[in-house]
Amino acid sequence: MQKAQGETFFFLHSAYCFCLLPTAYCFCLLPTAFCLPRLRPLTPCVQDEWLVMNGQFSFQKVAADNLTQARAGRVFTAHGSFDTPAFMLVGTQGTVKALTQQMLEGAGAQIILGNTYHLYLRPGYETINRIGGLHRFISWERPILTDSGGFQVFSLNELRSLSEEGVRFQSHIDGSTHFLSPEKSMEIQAALGSDIVMAFDECTPFPATRDEAQASLDLTRRWAIRSKQRLSELHNDKSAAENAGIHIVNRTQALFGINQGSTFLNLREQSLSGLIEIGFDGYAIGGLSVGEEKDAMFELVSHLSPMMPEDKPRYLMGVGSPEDIIAAVACGVDMFDCVMPTRNARNGQLFTRRGKMNIKNARYKDDTEPIDDVCACEVCARYSRAYLRHLYMSDEILGSVLSSLHNASFYLDMMGMIRQSISLGTFKEFSNSFLSGLARGQD
Amino acid sequence: MQKAQGETFFFLHSAYCFCLLPTAYCFCLLPTAFCLPRLRPLTPCVQDEWLVMNGQFSFQKVAADNLTQARAGRVFTAHGSFDTPAFMLVGTQGTVKALTQQMLEGAGAQIILGNTYHLYLRPGYETINRIGGLHRFISWERPILTDSGGFQVFSLNELRSLSEEGVRFQSHIDGSTHFLSPEKSMEIQAALGSDIVMAFDECTPFPATRDEAQASLDLTRRWAIRSKQRLSELHNDKSAAENAGIHIVNRTQALFGINQGSTFLNLREQSLSGLIEIGFDGYAIGGLSVGEEKDAMFELVSHLSPMMPEDKPRYLMGVGSPEDIIAAVACGVDMFDCVMPTRNARNGQLFTRRGKMNIKNARYKDDTEPIDDVCACEVCARYSRAYLRHLYMSDEILGSVLSSLHNASFYLDMMGMIRQSISLGTFKEFSNSFLSGLARGQD
Repeated sequence: MQKAQGETFFFLHSAYCFCLLPTAYCFCLLPTAFCLPRLRPLTPCVQDEWLVMNGQFSFQKVAADNLTQARAGRVFTAHGSFDTPAFMLVGTQGTVKALTQQMLEGAGAQIILGNTYHLYLRPGYETINRIGGLHRFISWERPILTDSGGFQVFSLNELRSLSEEGVRFQSHIDGSTHFLSPEKSMEIQAALGSDIVMAFDECTPFPATRDEAQASLDLTRRWAIRSKQRLSELHNDKSAAENAGIHIVNRTQALFGINQGSTFLNLREQSLSGLIEIGFDGYAIGGLSVGEEKDAMFELVSHLSPMMPEDKPRYLMGVGSPEDIIAAVACGVDMFDCVMPTRNARNGQLFTRRGKMNIKNARYKDDTEPIDDVCACEVCARYSRAYLRHLYMSDEILGSVLSSLHNASFYLDMMGMIRQSISLGTFKEFSNSFLSGLARGQD
Repeated sequence: MQKAQGETFFFLHSAYCFCLLPTAYCFCLLPTAFCLPRLRPLTPCVQDEWLVMNGQFSFQKVAADNLTQARAGRVFTAHGSFDTPAFMLVGTQGTVKALTQQMLEGAGAQIILGNTYHLYLRPGYETINRIGGLHRFISWERPILTDSGGFQVFSLNELRSLSEEGVRFQSHIDGSTHFLSPEKSMEIQAALGSDIVMAFDECTPFPATRDEAQASLDLTRRWAIRSKQRLSELHNDKSAAENAGIHIVNRTQALFGINQGSTFLNLREQSLSGLIEIGFDGYAIGGLSVGEEKDAMFELVSHLSPMMPEDKPRYLMGVGSPEDIIAAVACGVDMFDCVMPTRNARNGQLFTRRGKMNIKNARYKDDTEPIDDVCACEVCARYSRAYLRHLYMSDEILGSVLSSLHNASFYLDMMGMIRQSISLGTFKEFSNSFLSGLARGQD
């Protein structure tokens, strides 16, 4: 039986996984464990399905809410699927801070995010590629999304210079000079072997004039084209990949385009049309949650999201709080990421169904209750507020570990409840009830 | 049926646990979960045994080595038993640094140590007692030993003044003044409800003249008498306990006396006779591993250990390296504690069967091997040296977590192998082989 060169079929049927490997591209990374057990299956499973993945990833809508734009779905990748709306915990340097991979699995993390900028600087993408890619390097077999590195580089205000070609910047670690371009970003992300690659964009500074926003989105569009072309080369031309120092390639990587245009609705529309014309596996809204008013953000998201392709995942980058996520889900957004659960945890701020809790507060000194009495996480099952507070006051590592685990579980459980309510047609009731709990504003 | 006041019977028979509670002392803490599952039963279990514990703990010798003084045994407490020779990970502030209690259980920790000095200062023994004792506060149901606080207080060179009554010192946290005496140390440890209480001793400074050492051990002896008397009062006189602010008492607490005498053999002997005369549930060798030569330490331990009561546990405080532990086991020591596995882990030093490994070393940059290829711990099962090194170089919390877990597992596994070899009569062969592995000096 003759197969098209490089063609790969995945048959996912009940418990049986067959993987027919192409002979021509033996440098292609095809993990076998792409149907991972779910420790907390909070949404109905798509079962008994026959799936063909032709070196591509896919998105399937499972349910849609009647009262809002909210939708539930599933994204399939070579490292297994994840359910949407999905929240990605941020594993900046190849680790979701303070948590073991086993804890992440236990908490129900189906996909995590890695930062291209940080991993490029340390340990370096060549090192990670030699070891077999980011999944193998960090020992995480579920999906990974990598950002483009743009957001971090543009955060280095004083340390960068921008040109059509790309951006020159100085490392925040040792001050050494580096150059990041759409091509370079794709090389790094190809070397990392993530399941979802983000196109290299200019994150438009906020505030921006209309002209600045226009110039920025035009640049981002040109960079999007270059990103797509370079990733395709790396996926399909073995010598191109090897010349870039990449010896193991995950040809199933999806590429997402990033919408820019600051807070100008028509520029956002213009940016989106441009991206759709180029064609991506998913569409992200970038340049938000950077200082603009909440109202402006949601006006934009609610306007833009329904215009994004129905059959592709929609990703709102860097958002956000539980309230923001629920609001954006109602606008039809499928994917989120934010450092909030882990960063706040390390600062002693814990999320609960009754609002945020500052565990350093003296009132928790003798409190034998769990952080959140309706939370099913490992931390709430075993430890008291008094102990958590003591760990904080004593500056103990375990304080960061347990708080991060709780906050991560809170976010992931919330996403599960969101998905379930969409599937059951009760998203509006769920969100009203959940938001009113959060508004109690425990401290 | 009439029972003697305060008498408590524990019947431990196969899977059935019956606990007959006395009516008079309802303020007595009697945990029900005193036969905990062992995740790694490395020594033969004492099974089908009928055990009466009359408010006391007990020690049972299980096996003795023919070629050395090494012996294997089991210590029974109200929070379950632990096997000896035992290593206690140090949970200074109510947490073995960087590890969750679940990780400790998984690694096979049967007993941990808590520091009286630290817990007295933060969160305070009244707080812990109100919550139900240290076990409940930190959510750890297995045995706990607490030190007397003396060692830490005497480490505060500039911040203390010593008298017959006790020692006045300033907190290292906020400079506030406190007073610790044998009575106060017992009150704190009674409030913590640990299973093994250490008598309050003066840790003789090193080096010391014979006269200084004599004066110190005489003081320690007088303090040992006061310690025993005060703990007995707190256990048996409800109003004495309540007047000291203690509302929950674990009457099954054992009390260990501490041997001092610096490096003078006859002073050590004198100290030991004095302690035996007073009578304790176990005997500890203190004031070692404080700067003296290794040879001096082992000359002393090998001389002293066989003179210690055969039917009581022998505890060498603050020791030590894997090599030191094996040497001390050969002298007949049953219990150890040291911060080495966790502290070294946080500094990037990992223990392996082939010697210590400095994970920061550049040679591990691309190394996909586990830390120790014959180690069965969670870390070695999942993560590579390259990833561990990356976590260190990136100053990630997960580096401390995983390294501490590995080192803790290394120590606990080693203790399991020691116990097994004693039971099998192969301790000498085991120790020769294990020590020659360590001597390879991997770096």
